[in-house]
Amino acid sequence: MTTTVPSTMRASVLLEAKRLELQERPVPEPGPGEVLIRVRSVGVCGSDVHYYEHGRIGDFVVEQPLVLGHEMSGVVAAVGPGVDEARVGERVAVDPQRPCRTCRLCKTGHLNLCERMQFFATPPVDGAFADYVVAPADFTFAVPDTLSDHAAALLEPFSVGMWACGKAALEPGSRVLISGGGPIGALTALAARSYGATEVVVTDLVESRRRRILDFGATASLDPTAADVDLGELGVDAFIECSGATPALLSGLDALRPGGRAVMVGLGAETMPIPVQTIMNKELTLTGIFRYVDTWPKVIAAAQQPGVDLDALVTAEFDLEDAEFALTADADPTSMKSVVVVSR
Amino acid sequence: MTTTVPSTMRASVLLEAKRLELQERPVPEPGPGEVLIRVRSVGVCGSDVHYYEHGRIGDFVVEQPLVLGHEMSGVVAAVGPGVDEARVGERVAVDPQRPCRTCRLCKTGHLNLCERMQFFATPPVDGAFADYVVAPADFTFAVPDTLSDHAAALLEPFSVGMWACGKAALEPGSRVLISGGGPIGALTALAARSYGATEVVVTDLVESRRRRILDFGATASLDPTAADVDLGELGVDAFIECSGATPALLSGLDALRPGGRAVMVGLGAETMPIPVQTIMNKELTLTGIFRYVDTWPKVIAAAQQPGVDLDALVTAEFDLEDAEFALTADADPTSMKSVVVVSR
Amino acid sequence: MTTTVPSTMRASVLLEAKRLELQERPVPEPGPGEVLIRVRSVGVCGSDVHYYEHGRIGDFVVEQPLVLGHEMSGVVAAVGPGVDEARVGERVAVDPQRPCRTCRLCKTGHLNLCERMQFFATPPVDGAFADYVVAPADFTFAVPDTLSDHAAALLEPFSVGMWACGKAALEPGSRVLISGGGPIGALTALAARSYGATEVVVTDLVESRRRRILDFGATASLDPTAADVDLGELGVDAFIECSGATPALLSGLDALRPGGRAVMVGLGAETMPIPVQTIMNKELTLTGIFRYVDTWPKVIAAAQQPGVDLDALVTAEFDLEDAEFALTADADPTSMKSVVVVSR
Amino acid sequence: MTTTVPSTMRASVLLEAKRLELQERPVPEPGPGEVLIRVRSVGVCGSDVHYYEHGRIGDFVVEQPLVLGHEMSGVVAAVGPGVDEARVGERVAVDPQRPCRTCRLCKTGHLNLCERMQFFATPPVDGAFADYVVAPADFTFAVPDTLSDHAAALLEPFSVGMWACGKAALEPGSRVLISGGGPIGALTALAARSYGATEVVVTDLVESRRRRILDFGATASLDPTAADVDLGELGVDAFIECSGATPALLSGLDALRPGGRAVMVGLGAETMPIPVQTIMNKELTLTGIFRYVDTWPKVIAAAQQPGVDLDALVTAEFDLEDAEFALTADADPTSMKSVVVVSR
Repeated sequence: MTTTVPSTMRASVLLEAKRLELQERPVPEPGPGEVLIRVRSVGVCGSDVHYYEHGRIGDFVVEQPLVLGHEMSGVVAAVGPGVDEARVGERVAVDPQRPCRTCRLCKTGHLNLCERMQFFATPPVDGAFADYVVAPADFTFAVPDTLSDHAAALLEPFSVGMWACGKAALEPGSRVLISGGGPIGALTALAARSYGATEVVVTDLVESRRRRILDFGATASLDPTAADVDLGELGVDAFIECSGATPALLSGLDALRPGGRAVMVGLGAETMPIPVQTIMNKELTLTGIFRYVDTWPKVIAAAQQPGVDLDALVTAEFDLEDAEFALTADADPTSMKSVVVVSR
Repeated sequence: MTTTVPSTMRASVLLEAKRLELQERPVPEPGPGEVLIRVRSVGVCGSDVHYYEHGRIGDFVVEQPLVLGHEMSGVVAAVGPGVDEARVGERVAVDPQRPCRTCRLCKTGHLNLCERMQFFATPPVDGAFADYVVAPADFTFAVPDTLSDHAAALLEPFSVGMWACGKAALEPGSRVLISGGGPIGALTALAARSYGATEVVVTDLVESRRRRILDFGATASLDPTAADVDLGELGVDAFIECSGATPALLSGLDALRPGGRAVMVGLGAETMPIPVQTIMNKELTLTGIFRYVDTWPKVIAAAQQPGVDLDALVTAEFDLEDAEFALTADADPTSMKSVVVVSR
Repeated sequence: MTTTVPSTMRASVLLEAKRLELQERPVPEPGPGEVLIRVRSVGVCGSDVHYYEHGRIGDFVVEQPLVLGHEMSGVVAAVGPGVDEARVGERVAVDPQRPCRTCRLCKTGHLNLCERMQFFATPPVDGAFADYVVAPADFTFAVPDTLSDHAAALLEPFSVGMWACGKAALEPGSRVLISGGGPIGALTALAARSYGATEVVVTDLVESRRRRILDFGATASLDPTAADVDLGELGVDAFIECSGATPALLSGLDALRPGGRAVMVGLGAETMPIPVQTIMNKELTLTGIFRYVDTWPKVIAAAQQPGVDLDALVTAEFDLEDAEFALTADADPTSMKSVVVVSR
Repeated sequence: MTTTVPSTMRASVLLEAKRLELQERPVPEPGPGEVLIRVRSVGVCGSDVHYYEHGRIGDFVVEQPLVLGHEMSGVVAAVGPGVDEARVGERVAVDPQRPCRTCRLCKTGHLNLCERMQFFATPPVDGAFADYVVAPADFTFAVPDTLSDHAAALLEPFSVGMWACGKAALEPGSRVLISGGGPIGALTALAARSYGATEVVVTDLVESRRRRILDFGATASLDPTAADVDLGELGVDAFIECSGATPALLSGLDALRPGGRAVMVGLGAETMPIPVQTIMNKELTLTGIFRYVDTWPKVIAAAQQPGVDLDALVTAEFDLEDAEFALTADADPTSMKSVVVVSR
């Protein structure tokens, strides 16, 4: 199978905070072990929005033009040296990590923590708001026809939820509290059900999210500010923080049973006032996640299970030309996930 | 709530191999920390059948009259000193273990391996083919109305499957091979799905079992003797042996990917010719299970999930007077699980 | 072997903050599964001092007269029903926990988190500043002649260090930072070496402790306030906080490599401002300890190894009559561990 | 620092079973990410001897001339593209693995199980019986001056022992049985002490080995055939098989406590009659090892600890010209480890 690859392509480039420009760029060449991907769907992540709004995330600053987007699906258009030609034409989802493969972390199963990681859409590495991207062949995964292009793109945030649930050590019968019913909270709830959790309580301030989350694996949803809610009574096995809100973290820690595990996913304040004495007295474990390791095979399998519908998360579609609208649409709390449709 | 407890009761007693007698016995008294249970359903296990047929299992010999049955549900009829009176009337399932609670194994999370364990229906401890039994209150678990008496009794073999899947370290996306599609194989397949396994291949020699198992979580079933089957190609993450057949164990080990885990559940030969070189070269892990630890909360929760129907496993019901028929019914390979109905 | 047990004994009783009284009390009777112990050495712990100074620790308030002391050794003087008579005369160390044995935490290897725990010298349970104490036989461990009475008593704080190192997942070659070079820091350093840690850096503000700690397993010691010290450069595998000081916790978290583990042991502020973003970005794990599980066999074995000298920790001895001096001696930072000698 | 590298070198080449030839060969060039190493010491491993004797190990057949040797130390003589020039002159030990770095096993911490592994001295990959070898820079580790060239070479078999002890989950106070007191048994005993094991019992048929092993961390040694030895009474936490003898494996399994772990290291029969019922009843875990992952940092640290003397294992030295003698010397059971001295 062959496809014709043009020499130039469109790319939506962030020049500085709040300034996006559609540029014509050369199509990149896949190097050894790499594939060239014709991009189809790209989900908009909170980090994309943050770069767009502020031109930086912490120490990562947009100092030169940057292409955003790292939740992507597409079709293999060409392969570099050493990659099986038969992959051309394959519908794929991409793990957007490019670790060094030689440090101790990479070699011991912690490639997500590689200090030389290159990550899509993180300065100075370009992302997927473009017609074509190049990725390592082994981080590019075939997806079955039963998964749509959008769903294939959303395997990235689903991976975040799956990795978080793994850190939370969920198992059949686990009772878990998730704070934050946005896209990551929803995909974490779905992942929790994949792990066999049978009680998945999600808190969110927004009523529409509390209703919607019941379609994404939550068994109950609560308004954490309601007068009659005392999360401390829950005694849950695990707590996964997906809102970034300090009060949510504190309530969640309070809700854990002795020996319980708390996993932080949502970005919020750099420092929070943590009840260390409670952590000690109940031997709680507090950790956080930074991307994921080897989750695509898991999420591809899990996404095909009954009750899992990643497409239902998509609340808006935008053309590549309209990427700027996509980056601002998520401000509306009734929206969940915007997708940029690069091609179909 | 109160119930009236008679002073005597019926008990089906194994006098020696193949000789069962219905006796009148005094109703036992619950001691401190114990409850008295009015028995409802009791599942017939392969071990019950083995004691009935041979009068022994390995070193455990029926030297004095023994009441069989350890898969049981019922209703709390009275409580011993120190137990909350409110439990009287509670519908319950019973973890049939009574460990010493003081040895190092008991105190470090391995109570199933306690060397002073007393276990229902294991000489010289009587089992549940009787109107009443006594059990420790903390090994007696409330079951919701959504679970039938039969299902509550079958939480015991479901615990076996759940414990096996835990030892196999299953997680979302796991690919698992199970050999043997009898009751334990079926409940292990269901447990594997609870753990998020997405590919559950079951092998069995009997065609009817291969068909039926597809209702119990298996995603595929195979005749291991068919000419076109090469389990070695599977490369599964985990293998759970539920048939006791030596060839099944060997095929299963062959089917594991490097780093895979094998868990033995089915009883067969005392010694098997194991390919130790393969275990080393692929760093496989071979282990087995002996009962379970703290599985009732897990299986009670899992049994209420969509797609899990423990009642569907029951292929025959017998009155307590007919316990002998129950002990011989399972010889028919189209039967799955016989239940003795002590009361309703 | 028999010993004569008198009917009354001396007990040093805390009536209220800073008011200790030597009383005559009846010798307790060992119940089923218990032993009576003639107390020999009792170490003074920071918690004893805290109860003496303030009459409370957090929610635990001395509302009725309380006997302090929970680091103890002695000789079995009598046994209760069900305990082997041969234990009379045995030199023993005591795990001062008395868990309920029936809750889920007790039955799954987390007895230290039992919510019905009774613990020596924690209101309202009396401790070991007395001629005799009663303890469960299975929490009472024979000690070899090579360990002195003092060393046997100090197996309790050594257990704290061992449990902390276990939570820190130390292994051969591990690099660990310990903040605080007091008794717990010292015993944690020794425990770290038992786990094979080859780099054990201890920080302390007090110069004499920095010198002394080098005899307790530390491979280096640092003044954390010195101008040329930047713990952040360490990149250690594990950090164990034994000082209770907030700045020490923050420096230690900063010193961890990606994927590193922090364990809190020292009591300090209830809440601390934790850099949660760092925990997420480096996938650190923050936990704390609350006592220990099944550590006596480990510490008895470890205490007999070359390079481990628990006696060297003792800086002062006091008679039971002088318990009040023992409770105030540790204020001097050059002191490490005071021991009350009840008998020899 | 610079070193002059000649264009040709000596290599000791196995042409076929029992036929070794010293050849002149071109010095290899280090590729990207690689270093060229001037070889110093090379330990002789049982696998080298086996290839020499039989021309094959299982499926690995010497079909073209092969250089043996994979336990090696040396000095970096040149670096390939992308490697820090400053490494030239560095004394190094080499992890002789060259995994693909792209398969799932490589990326999840199991690089030793990589199915595309290239391993020194395993057909068709040449080993270290030569003046120079090339290795990946990240598998080449600086060694301190306190470790001799011989000791640096023996870090490879020490890694085997360390990895085995990790699989055995040893910790402070562990009681471990090791069968086989040869070089691997000795290094495993040393590794067991590094993990804090306090009882290390080694069995061997040869009296001189039973004596010698006491200098390598064993706390006791036994003749397994002696009339008064019943290993079954030991109840050890872990058993590590280093002899390859079937009876040793069976005795070791018998010696394990419930929940104990058995790790196979020694190569013997392909299949052994394993007591699977015992594995089930005691929930034993049987596994084996295949090389190691990330052990050099651990063993470099452990090799410098008091009581660890790798040099003491060396019982004979040979020049490269005499490699053939080195490959036959180990037949003598009083010998432990032969080393080929390529340069000093």
